Amino acid sequence: MAKLKMGMIGGDLNSFIGGKHRSAAQLDGQIELVCGAFSASKEASHETGRALHLQPHRVYDTYSEMIQKEKELPEDQRMDFVSVVTPNHVHFDPCMMALDNGFHVVCEKPLAFNLQEALQLAEKVKSSGKLFAVTHTYTGYAMVKEAKNIVASGQLGTIRKIVVRYAQGWLSAADISNNPAAQWRTDPKRSGISCCMGDIGTHAANLAEYISGSKITKICSDLNSIVENRLLDDDASAFLRFDNGAKGLLFASQISAGEENELQINIYGEKGSIEWLQSFPQQLKVKWQGKITEIMSEGADKPYLQTPLTANAIRLPAGHPSGYLEAFANIYNSFAHVLNAHKIGNPITGGYDYPTVEDGVRGMRLIEAAVESSQKGQVWIDL
Amino acid sequence: MAKLKMGMIGGDLNSFIGGKHRSAAQLDGQIELVCGAFSASKEASHETGRALHLQPHRVYDTYSEMIQKEKELPEDQRMDFVSVVTPNHVHFDPCMMALDNGFHVVCEKPLAFNLQEALQLAEKVKSSGKLFAVTHTYTGYAMVKEAKNIVASGQLGTIRKIVVRYAQGWLSAADISNNPAAQWRTDPKRSGISCCMGDIGTHAANLAEYISGSKITKICSDLNSIVENRLLDDDASAFLRFDNGAKGLLFASQISAGEENELQINIYGEKGSIEWLQSFPQQLKVKWQGKITEIMSEGADKPYLQTPLTANAIRLPAGHPSGYLEAFANIYNSFAHVLNAHKIGNPITGGYDYPTVEDGVRGMRLIEAAVESSQKGQVWIDL
Amino acid sequence: MAKLKMGMIGGDLNSFIGGKHRSAAQLDGQIELVCGAFSASKEASHETGRALHLQPHRVYDTYSEMIQKEKELPEDQRMDFVSVVTPNHVHFDPCMMALDNGFHVVCEKPLAFNLQEALQLAEKVKSSGKLFAVTHTYTGYAMVKEAKNIVASGQLGTIRKIVVRYAQGWLSAADISNNPAAQWRTDPKRSGISCCMGDIGTHAANLAEYISGSKITKICSDLNSIVENRLLDDDASAFLRFDNGAKGLLFASQISAGEENELQINIYGEKGSIEWLQSFPQQLKVKWQGKITEIMSEGADKPYLQTPLTANAIRLPAGHPSGYLEAFANIYNSFAHVLNAHKIGNPITGGYDYPTVEDGVRGMRLIEAAVESSQKGQVWIDL
Amino acid sequence: MAKLKMGMIGGDLNSFIGGKHRSAAQLDGQIELVCGAFSASKEASHETGRALHLQPHRVYDTYSEMIQKEKELPEDQRMDFVSVVTPNHVHFDPCMMALDNGFHVVCEKPLAFNLQEALQLAEKVKSSGKLFAVTHTYTGYAMVKEAKNIVASGQLGTIRKIVVRYAQGWLSAADISNNPAAQWRTDPKRSGISCCMGDIGTHAANLAEYISGSKITKICSDLNSIVENRLLDDDASAFLRFDNGAKGLLFASQISAGEENELQINIYGEKGSIEWLQSFPQQLKVKWQGKITEIMSEGADKPYLQTPLTANAIRLPAGHPSGYLEAFANIYNSFAHVLNAHKIGNPITGGYDYPTVEDGVRGMRLIEAAVESSQKGQVWIDL
Repeated sequence: MAKLKMGMIGGDLNSFIGGKHRSAAQLDGQIELVCGAFSASKEASHETGRALHLQPHRVYDTYSEMIQKEKELPEDQRMDFVSVVTPNHVHFDPCMMALDNGFHVVCEKPLAFNLQEALQLAEKVKSSGKLFAVTHTYTGYAMVKEAKNIVASGQLGTIRKIVVRYAQGWLSAADISNNPAAQWRTDPKRSGISCCMGDIGTHAANLAEYISGSKITKICSDLNSIVENRLLDDDASAFLRFDNGAKGLLFASQISAGEENELQINIYGEKGSIEWLQSFPQQLKVKWQGKITEIMSEGADKPYLQTPLTANAIRLPAGHPSGYLEAFANIYNSFAHVLNAHKIGNPITGGYDYPTVEDGVRGMRLIEAAVESSQKGQVWIDL
Repeated sequence: MAKLKMGMIGGDLNSFIGGKHRSAAQLDGQIELVCGAFSASKEASHETGRALHLQPHRVYDTYSEMIQKEKELPEDQRMDFVSVVTPNHVHFDPCMMALDNGFHVVCEKPLAFNLQEALQLAEKVKSSGKLFAVTHTYTGYAMVKEAKNIVASGQLGTIRKIVVRYAQGWLSAADISNNPAAQWRTDPKRSGISCCMGDIGTHAANLAEYISGSKITKICSDLNSIVENRLLDDDASAFLRFDNGAKGLLFASQISAGEENELQINIYGEKGSIEWLQSFPQQLKVKWQGKITEIMSEGADKPYLQTPLTANAIRLPAGHPSGYLEAFANIYNSFAHVLNAHKIGNPITGGYDYPTVEDGVRGMRLIEAAVESSQKGQVWIDL
Repeated sequence: MAKLKMGMIGGDLNSFIGGKHRSAAQLDGQIELVCGAFSASKEASHETGRALHLQPHRVYDTYSEMIQKEKELPEDQRMDFVSVVTPNHVHFDPCMMALDNGFHVVCEKPLAFNLQEALQLAEKVKSSGKLFAVTHTYTGYAMVKEAKNIVASGQLGTIRKIVVRYAQGWLSAADISNNPAAQWRTDPKRSGISCCMGDIGTHAANLAEYISGSKITKICSDLNSIVENRLLDDDASAFLRFDNGAKGLLFASQISAGEENELQINIYGEKGSIEWLQSFPQQLKVKWQGKITEIMSEGADKPYLQTPLTANAIRLPAGHPSGYLEAFANIYNSFAHVLNAHKIGNPITGGYDYPTVEDGVRGMRLIEAAVESSQKGQVWIDL
Repeated sequence: MAKLKMGMIGGDLNSFIGGKHRSAAQLDGQIELVCGAFSASKEASHETGRALHLQPHRVYDTYSEMIQKEKELPEDQRMDFVSVVTPNHVHFDPCMMALDNGFHVVCEKPLAFNLQEALQLAEKVKSSGKLFAVTHTYTGYAMVKEAKNIVASGQLGTIRKIVVRYAQGWLSAADISNNPAAQWRTDPKRSGISCCMGDIGTHAANLAEYISGSKITKICSDLNSIVENRLLDDDASAFLRFDNGAKGLLFASQISAGEENELQINIYGEKGSIEWLQSFPQQLKVKWQGKITEIMSEGADKPYLQTPLTANAIRLPAGHPSGYLEAFANIYNSFAHVLNAHKIGNPITGGYDYPTVEDGVRGMRLIEAAVESSQKGQVWIDL
């Protein structure tokens, strides 16, 4: 079987996330980048294509050109799916166009600019029968998948409390004039109605739902714009309720000066709890009430990590750290497995998952509910 | 100068906290236990006195007997102060009686059974001119004092966000029939209107106020009774506002299965933040936005830990861990220094502090506001 | 039963270790300091006695005066044992004199100035029938005792390799003119034939033998005087052989700039290993080959820490850190239990141990063998 | 400029290290795999080629066929370099043949089966003018490069002591019948004269020399075959001397049951030291004697990590962990940069380094000296 062929929309040489998508997609040798419309600037798009050694005729001026031209290529040449890595406000159009023209999609999170767009996309995914992944990267980590397994096994007893913390410091400074990423994140025209909750709160919530297997049903939130003159929230706290009855607490902040990318989750059941930190992702702590704490450690050679979901996400023997890029690659790798199976009409046998358009919709609901709750003075809003 | 003489109310041989107060008080050789009324049971009181090698005539049947009899002893023999280590509902009476009869007091937290009692005690302390300490143990740690110094120095810039987490798992089980401490903590008649917020939430809040030098002005809380049939909260989350404008988040839980006594605080300023964990108390992290993270480490030989407040709280050279008992002893040691100075009419030159009756009152206010906020459905209540 | 009465030799107000012995001895309320000859300087001795609130007539000019005068006191008043906390070269005489006059002894390590003295002391202990403890502090930690239990249980299989590392940086500087402790440690007249191996290498070796239950049979060592003009070793490495067949590696250094008091031990069996670090002493890692790593955590409430040896060394529930002082106190506390039993002719039922004169002799043998091995150019020397 | 074209020798689908080389080589999009002779088995070679989506005519039966055929291809089609990932005893022949036929080489470590072969290879590299890299992976980590920078800057003062520890447990079991990697590692016919020192001791030594910038001049070693009937060493300790005068200690073991891949290095200078652990590679501790400990943290956005050597090795902003694969990729990426510069005759401007054939030779010298030292009973052997 040939490699899957990917086209990219956005992600020129100045983009951080574009390069990461490319590395992640190609890490396992199952996907190759064949074409791209990398920028709203024609020049930037072609410069990027050259740097990536693409064939010149498969570097396009615009994404609509790309989608049209690729559609006309013979099936064994044209791209299988597009990867959309533009800013939030340019997710909807290319995703819709790709789906309408028969291409599968991988899209950066958050899914869209607002909930309305997100719901339309979900509808389109359904009607088109195409595959659609949203890159909530953190659920790609192997030990996150194992955490999900442990909760699902029931060993911890009923889950009672979920606490997730995502602290960053990069938006601490008032002057962001030399930081383009900070500029668009804090600009309502490009970012939507939320900065912090949209950018990282959605990751935290997605992680909590993924591991716990429960859905957030309502939220009572305290969003703040801490830095003077900031138009959107840069700090967020929220009380949560989950559909299994668990209570939750979410903390997300981008003005936590000195924090890098501190994502931590603790899930408390009746008998014990799990703890996972993204900064040391190969480790998973299982803390038992009254019994010895256990530390599970990522490794292809670990007899205790052999469920397909976890095992498929591990590349190396224990003691050889993997990280963010590998987690990212796991999303692409799962997407590739499912897409290959889809192409030949095979039933999927499990062990490969990725965040879907539904997860993306849930993220948009969370954003809207959180903003409404906070604006109304910390009232409960249903998701 | 002779050692200070301490009498104890409560703390018989079955009590956990009584023995800790005795060890802490005597650790530095400046205080000796001379008398006690250790239990509501006469027999238990005398048995405890014997085990502690006290003179039999200074072991009393009741605390009122002790206070009366000690008052009649010559000044160079009678106790200087009482240490009150009874359950919450038996704090008020002995404290009032001791103050009324001219004795200084060290009292377990929370200060009283309710705010009303607490305010009366504070009034009495003022009118009597006696010293009064409340044992919020965690502010006794040397690196907590250094954290306070760092915040006060302004190095971090304005404090913007304070996050404190206090997770325990010991009340996870539904059946607490064999755990007397769990029984009285969860019994409204002995514990007051709150379990979790009263027992550990107050510690967390006190720690936040102590280090930040700011006071909580209002609270919006989410208290839960997670375990079936529990009458009081065993889990608490709260949004906070501080009088310097900082936002806050407090998490306290006693059903965090697998957690031992996980108290962590992060205080975020404009330029950096501090992080302290009670489980590894000799270390203080200072995280700077864009600069190298610093780890300060407790040690009498550290040139960078020489402000009196910090230096007075350290007994050992670096690399020789100290812990909970030493933090506890620091409260007694500070109390002893201030009391000795008080006895000879000396002005206090600083470097010794301890939680006072005002801290105790603030704790009671927090409990009442938290309970009211949660009962009314997460509304903001002023402290 | 009355408290045990302790006399102290050495340990004036300028001494670091003297104060620690006093705090440790008195922490559990079973021992009281009743007399002392705290310094070769009469004035310093009496000043120390005053600061410690001793009765003036029990503060002595010299240790020989103390031993003679105390011997003449009635049995219910005189000291039960002496604590010898002088520098190495003043251990032998007071210990011998105390034993000759019927007093039990607790002595700082290393036991003596040289092996010859150590052997004489051991002989005297035997002939006198008195108790004798050497304060190898680190074996007093609760989790060290639990480590010993685990090895003894056989769970790890045969022990194959023992690696112990003890790194300090305090002798890094060439100029030690303002550091009296550094001066005597590096002075052959006061310290003996070794500095680093004698001061901390003996601790490391004692810890390895204690936990493993095996004895070092020979050593091949590489001692270095790293700092210019230093007369004794300040850095040491050694290959070891143990009597159970295990191989060993010992690293001790006092010029490891930036290290505080980094004592770590790893003991490898066929099936798994244990790891303990003194800087985080309440934790014990058990690493299993191919199975989940376990972290045991000190706490009086831990069901898995209930063997007498471990349980007797724990004072607090889990999550309340203890440290160096508590480990030190465990040695005195064990000594007190055994001495009380000895006084009433009771058989000891176990669960209380402390380093004996035999451990002290082994330390001296290690020093002599290590120095000889290194001087001869890394040859194997039997202990 | 087109991507560099790589051919691979060894590394069929059953090989662990082959896949890692391929992922690492292609991670940054500068190298593509174009051909291979993946196995001594023709079938396995072709099956691997198919799985990797290679053109069938560029999958070869043997490496000699590959080298011959590729040489005949036009320059813009033929491979630029070969990657040799066979077991130790099959390094020499393909490397020599590749060099003789004008191909650059990347070779797995250890460089060769014995020192004699290694010296011949080094000679051939010199005479051929070709580039040659040896994949000592651990020097590819960004924070290892920064550690090298710190030492070179002189901030720590003269380096006095270097301690490196590399502990694995995977050879603990006596029965390795189901573990092919364990079989060839412990087989003198395929592995050479050493197992543990050759496999991981050489990594540890290379890391020490790389960071310190000093070379090992002599060694006194204690190699052991711990597991019964094992023909080669599975455990090794060594005293070291470096050409700058520093003393060293190396511990490498493959019978450290429960350890995964625990590589730690501490380098002690006069004023401070650095500490790096492979299991948490994004962090670098700098411990200063008497000053606050610093923790440097990998991140492309860190102002303090901007020397070219370090900056070129970082792909992600802080808080996004990278790991083993990225370190490995850094070696290939540096090799690609130098090779691209070499092709156009450009002087290299620095900032890209990789382990060379000289490092490979030093590894072989170390193995031979270590084995000799131990066989002669722990005598010093010059390298």
